[in-house]
Amino acid sequence: MRITRTVAAFIRSARIAHLATADAAGQPHVVPICFVFDGRRIYSPIDEKPKTRSPLRLKRVRNIASNSRVAVIVDRYDEDWNRLAYVLISGTAGLLHRGSNHRKAITLLRRKYRQYRSMALEKRPVITIVPARVTGWGNV
Amino acid sequence: MRITRTVAAFIRSARIAHLATADAAGQPHVVPICFVFDGRRIYSPIDEKPKTRSPLRLKRVRNIASNSRVAVIVDRYDEDWNRLAYVLISGTAGLLHRGSNHRKAITLLRRKYRQYRSMALEKRPVITIVPARVTGWGNV
Repeated sequence: MRITRTVAAFIRSARIAHLATADAAGQPHVVPICFVFDGRRIYSPIDEKPKTRSPLRLKRVRNIASNSRVAVIVDRYDEDWNRLAYVLISGTAGLLHRGSNHRKAITLLRRKYRQYRSMALEKRPVITIVPARVTGWGNV
Repeated sequence: MRITRTVAAFIRSARIAHLATADAAGQPHVVPICFVFDGRRIYSPIDEKPKTRSPLRLKRVRNIASNSRVAVIVDRYDEDWNRLAYVLISGTAGLLHRGSNHRKAITLLRRKYRQYRSMALEKRPVITIVPARVTGWGNV
């Protein structure tokens, strides 16, 4: 999967993205996510702010378990509509519970979001998304 | 479908939302949308900025034709994570091509977005979403 530098920079510059999943019956679901992009994959922690229940019971996690196909959008809104832009990523999602990619994701997340530096992300799963198709639109 | 005043005000105050659809095979898709909420339904024009192809060929429109179940999220990001909030709306989507609801939607859209006042929205379809379930999270 080839992603240009411009598109990669646009993805990295965003503070949030939106993750769309669908359950086995085809009902879509979408949530804002904090994320990092290492140039090849997107990582998003299951942090729950505030933490209210088991991460594995979250709808996005249950959807990924039954249907790993997801879409992620990174976009910029501006009242000057010549500046509108988005990058849409379709891909396959999975869950990381531990290991080197899990550690790398947490390091990158704490570098990008100081809010994570005091959270016990190590003990929580991270969603990983491998892009299969990337589409840019507008003034990326 | 009962929506509290606070939630309705939060939905109305947002300049964009994100619309998630899924095709018949369960592949999710998500795009930022401009929209209005009249207290009962969400309306989003198929405006294409810039207009590049037939509105009926857009992926979101094709997905709705084969699977009318959608999700819409309205959210606020803030670096102070105590201020994070979202409202997630699951519902059923359809297309309006003309008629009184189509006219009402265009009037509301032009009131909310001055950018639409010079666009020929009358000739383009409007997506309408009837909420079935509304969930709030965080500091709505």
